[in-house]
Amino acid sequence: MAGNSFGTLFKLTTYGESHGKGLGGIIEGCPAGLQLDLDAIQKDLDRRRPGQSAIVTQRKEADQVEFYSGIFEGKTTGTPIGFLIPNTNQKSRDYSHIKDSYRPSHADYVYDHKYGFRDYRGGGRSSARETVCRVVAGAVAKQLLGEVRIQAYVSQVGDLALNKSVNELDLTQTESSPTRCPDPETAMEMEHLIKKVRKEGDTIGGVVSCLVQNVPIGLGEPVFDKLHARLGQAMLSINAVKGFEYGSGFQGVHMKGSEHNDAFNADGSTKTNYSGGIQGGISNGMDIYFRVAFKPVATLLQGYETIDREGESVTLQGKGRHDPCVVPRAVPIVEAMTALVLADFYLLSRVSKL
Amino acid sequence: MAGNSFGTLFKLTTYGESHGKGLGGIIEGCPAGLQLDLDAIQKDLDRRRPGQSAIVTQRKEADQVEFYSGIFEGKTTGTPIGFLIPNTNQKSRDYSHIKDSYRPSHADYVYDHKYGFRDYRGGGRSSARETVCRVVAGAVAKQLLGEVRIQAYVSQVGDLALNKSVNELDLTQTESSPTRCPDPETAMEMEHLIKKVRKEGDTIGGVVSCLVQNVPIGLGEPVFDKLHARLGQAMLSINAVKGFEYGSGFQGVHMKGSEHNDAFNADGSTKTNYSGGIQGGISNGMDIYFRVAFKPVATLLQGYETIDREGESVTLQGKGRHDPCVVPRAVPIVEAMTALVLADFYLLSRVSKL
Amino acid sequence: MAGNSFGTLFKLTTYGESHGKGLGGIIEGCPAGLQLDLDAIQKDLDRRRPGQSAIVTQRKEADQVEFYSGIFEGKTTGTPIGFLIPNTNQKSRDYSHIKDSYRPSHADYVYDHKYGFRDYRGGGRSSARETVCRVVAGAVAKQLLGEVRIQAYVSQVGDLALNKSVNELDLTQTESSPTRCPDPETAMEMEHLIKKVRKEGDTIGGVVSCLVQNVPIGLGEPVFDKLHARLGQAMLSINAVKGFEYGSGFQGVHMKGSEHNDAFNADGSTKTNYSGGIQGGISNGMDIYFRVAFKPVATLLQGYETIDREGESVTLQGKGRHDPCVVPRAVPIVEAMTALVLADFYLLSRVSKL
Amino acid sequence: MAGNSFGTLFKLTTYGESHGKGLGGIIEGCPAGLQLDLDAIQKDLDRRRPGQSAIVTQRKEADQVEFYSGIFEGKTTGTPIGFLIPNTNQKSRDYSHIKDSYRPSHADYVYDHKYGFRDYRGGGRSSARETVCRVVAGAVAKQLLGEVRIQAYVSQVGDLALNKSVNELDLTQTESSPTRCPDPETAMEMEHLIKKVRKEGDTIGGVVSCLVQNVPIGLGEPVFDKLHARLGQAMLSINAVKGFEYGSGFQGVHMKGSEHNDAFNADGSTKTNYSGGIQGGISNGMDIYFRVAFKPVATLLQGYETIDREGESVTLQGKGRHDPCVVPRAVPIVEAMTALVLADFYLLSRVSKL
Repeated sequence: MAGNSFGTLFKLTTYGESHGKGLGGIIEGCPAGLQLDLDAIQKDLDRRRPGQSAIVTQRKEADQVEFYSGIFEGKTTGTPIGFLIPNTNQKSRDYSHIKDSYRPSHADYVYDHKYGFRDYRGGGRSSARETVCRVVAGAVAKQLLGEVRIQAYVSQVGDLALNKSVNELDLTQTESSPTRCPDPETAMEMEHLIKKVRKEGDTIGGVVSCLVQNVPIGLGEPVFDKLHARLGQAMLSINAVKGFEYGSGFQGVHMKGSEHNDAFNADGSTKTNYSGGIQGGISNGMDIYFRVAFKPVATLLQGYETIDREGESVTLQGKGRHDPCVVPRAVPIVEAMTALVLADFYLLSRVSKL
Repeated sequence: MAGNSFGTLFKLTTYGESHGKGLGGIIEGCPAGLQLDLDAIQKDLDRRRPGQSAIVTQRKEADQVEFYSGIFEGKTTGTPIGFLIPNTNQKSRDYSHIKDSYRPSHADYVYDHKYGFRDYRGGGRSSARETVCRVVAGAVAKQLLGEVRIQAYVSQVGDLALNKSVNELDLTQTESSPTRCPDPETAMEMEHLIKKVRKEGDTIGGVVSCLVQNVPIGLGEPVFDKLHARLGQAMLSINAVKGFEYGSGFQGVHMKGSEHNDAFNADGSTKTNYSGGIQGGISNGMDIYFRVAFKPVATLLQGYETIDREGESVTLQGKGRHDPCVVPRAVPIVEAMTALVLADFYLLSRVSKL
Repeated sequence: MAGNSFGTLFKLTTYGESHGKGLGGIIEGCPAGLQLDLDAIQKDLDRRRPGQSAIVTQRKEADQVEFYSGIFEGKTTGTPIGFLIPNTNQKSRDYSHIKDSYRPSHADYVYDHKYGFRDYRGGGRSSARETVCRVVAGAVAKQLLGEVRIQAYVSQVGDLALNKSVNELDLTQTESSPTRCPDPETAMEMEHLIKKVRKEGDTIGGVVSCLVQNVPIGLGEPVFDKLHARLGQAMLSINAVKGFEYGSGFQGVHMKGSEHNDAFNADGSTKTNYSGGIQGGISNGMDIYFRVAFKPVATLLQGYETIDREGESVTLQGKGRHDPCVVPRAVPIVEAMTALVLADFYLLSRVSKL
Repeated sequence: MAGNSFGTLFKLTTYGESHGKGLGGIIEGCPAGLQLDLDAIQKDLDRRRPGQSAIVTQRKEADQVEFYSGIFEGKTTGTPIGFLIPNTNQKSRDYSHIKDSYRPSHADYVYDHKYGFRDYRGGGRSSARETVCRVVAGAVAKQLLGEVRIQAYVSQVGDLALNKSVNELDLTQTESSPTRCPDPETAMEMEHLIKKVRKEGDTIGGVVSCLVQNVPIGLGEPVFDKLHARLGQAMLSINAVKGFEYGSGFQGVHMKGSEHNDAFNADGSTKTNYSGGIQGGISNGMDIYFRVAFKPVATLLQGYETIDREGESVTLQGKGRHDPCVVPRAVPIVEAMTALVLADFYLLSRVSKL
């Protein structure tokens, strides 16, 4: 109810604030008998970790996950998997400057209204640091999904858009650049742009694209829990996301039905894939692809005017250690949320017929 | 679980197929004591009804809602509101031509794989006819929401986009045109375009925009149930939707943080509203606005080649009574889903603090 | 949330008041492909029906169920099964005498406090008439459960207790007596007792016992959703129930662990069955058995003193058509709720391991 | 779904095994602004703690709870409260003797069937050690409930039953005896009985009674989530519980309606309280009382014959540190589960009317 859970059968519930003692979660519903590769989980965490490159926040967090339950002799037991990522760096900052002030386009103002007060240290629960738990659970979900292959990548930063279709890209190159753009040339340009923006004390938006391959037919539920509707919720729940489109997306608006319809091959695959691998809310076995729009991060290094609790004008000076552009670090988060959605629907698909 | 419910406290569960005996639903969690205007509910149904104008499907359905429970002496009792919309026109068609065939970009193929067989009459459960139940529940939710004002309208059909911001529009004009575009000139052009497309036996996509005013501060829950994440799921669950963006949306990608941040006025309102009325997933009292992309309807009047269950090639001839463009009839559905999301968060907001 | 749903995967949601237009529900999550025997469903309804014998309420209701969706060509489609039982007899009564009065041990007083007002006709939503929907859904669940055999019977009325263990009883005789006590002699005595109590204008309590055979191993979930915990909730949710015990129950309190422990046979079955077929909250394949205590019905034919909304003393005269003892008609309801619990856990058990 | 969560608005989700690194949980939905007394929480944990007296298990666990989130400057923030109770004593035991054997009336056998294998150390997830998390959450719930007073006590051990009604008891004496029976004389006898049973290497059952005072009118939801149905589920979910009754309970079966009905006083209170403070599933403001039956613990010190995975006969020798009788330590668990039920319904009651 209170928004901390995602999923029905394969379900993640999280807790934790940016500057509390730690963040953690409970993964419920992972079937028993899954041999877990803990290194692969930590590796995804490392992809999300602050300080991993020159173009992301320099906050120092090891982000080491500790598992407390649900795994025995290397395998999932079917009981809930409790985990914790201790905050190792939470005491070092002074947040008195924002205690009584409302930073523009942050959650400060609305939290105070909704809850009467707030944990003002580093954004508290509204911090994107919360996504660390999603990456852990998503990495478990990926292992449950076996052959399903989820690959996200940066396709746009500011005005710099990757002008290649996914078929022209070599997604194995995604991790080669700190930008996580798989095209080396564009990646280089993006890196320069992000550094320039950071030097200005500013931030910039971007787009993460995602390709999912080897999806079984039949994932997704009719009506309210269509596969793309849950994917949309999943992506929009990530901090700074402003839009989601799948398949033909907003471009599909311009098309006619006779162009847009995906004609069948004899084997049930389709000649085109404007549907984005999903028809009637249910996966059809073709590649799923979608795009996620991220706004520029609200936290700036530049000074700015804002108001305090009493509505008085105050001047805030941004402090260090923030991402000039979130999309590189958002890539593993997008993948994790995709995996959570698919793992849940995979389990649900086991009970759809006798 | 099975995707037929939406909401947590204010909750709609629906049933029904396109050509069954009827469609219906149960609205749970509507607080007791709400004086219901039943005419207003029927009026929203009439806005969604087939056959209402020359540019929509000519299927003949009265779409009269019957209430069975939860209302006594004109007021909600706090107990579940059961309702039924009988299908009056369900026996007249012959569906043998699609019984064993898979129409492109329909749910036929995936339903057969997921469930082993399907109710092939008119798309069965996958038909957009199911949205009739959403409009009933949304109309109840609107009444619960009181002062909150939800106004959707058509802002694009094919390449014809409304080039005016919402402030330049007179939304009271939305119902004046069968297109539900509030700008008379553009509405006229859209109407011509839709008629032209229909004459070709084809269909065309479009965009529905939505503006929500007088929203209380504090709606939405942190992390997974952010207000815009639930709105996104709600919209993407509507048939034919391919994308959702709110506030600055995909355009926000191009901006810098210093431009995008919404500076505060002394009263807590903001000078700009790129946030789209939502910060950190929670309403901030400013107008909420978003856009929903609809693909062209897959059902065509043109003949086309496709496959049957055995993968053999078959030729299908489209039959009458389908929408050449869904967006005019989608307007009340977008409003209804918006109302369901807001009503649910309104009730949840009652328990967020002591 | 609002208490109208039961189950997670196999899920029933109901609506309807005693004297509204009808009662109905939605069954979600029934897997596709189940050949439904509609006569068997109606037959269970007939076992619950008013007016079926001289010792139950003489209210006249046909209780004919109409299905609206989710069934095609005789089989479940995997989509929600909507159903309706119209109230045919709802207008005939005059309820003005209880409109402003609070009948003792009814829900009148608490509904008025909780909701501000109430549908006072025949108890509204609090009427046991609501259980008609449970019987429909339970009858579908029974068919899903296949070989599982659920048999409830009356084992006590007032002081008249069946002094035989379940092994000494021939449960095929349960339907031979209007009391639904399988022992002919005791059944006769119970019938006399119930008639005597009715003649006095009074009511009497009783116990329904239930035996479940051929249960697969592994139904039930650890911790909060133990099989017997859900069975207990299910039974206690039936009107007039005051207690639930399974296996050794309250008698087990007197035993020592060395007596109570059920020693294993080589095949995993147990020599005794004090556990009642459930260990650690999970079925072990042995027979499940439990007992459900029903209080005497609160509605009397005798006149009595009570209070009205203002706390003023008023005298009410009971009116006809009420059950002098609920347990005979409760038998199919106990079976239905048992089936709902088991069907849900059966589906959940499909996702407990890889 | 997987049984690790309890509650809808005020919701506890737990994880952890008897001999893993620790047990923990997440409390969601506690409204913001509650000043938390952390000592009171630890005090309830101490009441459940092993080793607290001579008549309970001598396992050595400090059971110190650590909070990780959701509390700021002493008050709840409205965000999830994550907590952890590290297992300090988990490595000391040798469980190889039960690794391949099935202890009678334990969950060993059913876990192996349900999950394919199991964490055999100390019962893993099926251990009553899991209830430590319930006590933490229940202690938070108690503080949310303010004036509501929840008092459980031991009313029976084996054949030794407390022959006094709750009005004759001084419940402030409950903690004076290690048995948690408030009557000093009976407490002494119970203590002797438990010691005698322990000396025999055996165990014995018992009953915990519970009295709840100052309950607001209106808690509980109609139909499936009746207050007593949720209380029943809550109690039956506690390890070793075999039965639940409230108000007149199984004794009410013997009564006539004219005796059982609780006549009103002018102020809406009732002259008798056979209803146990609940009518139609909703609290009526009178005292709630109920009884919970616990079977004798299955773990014995005596040697016994049983089977292993292959169905071969093996002899097991019980090992130390188990409770000869669970009811004294069950008292705070019963209170905690009661508090969880009431806190959840308290929040739900805020949305029942306009």
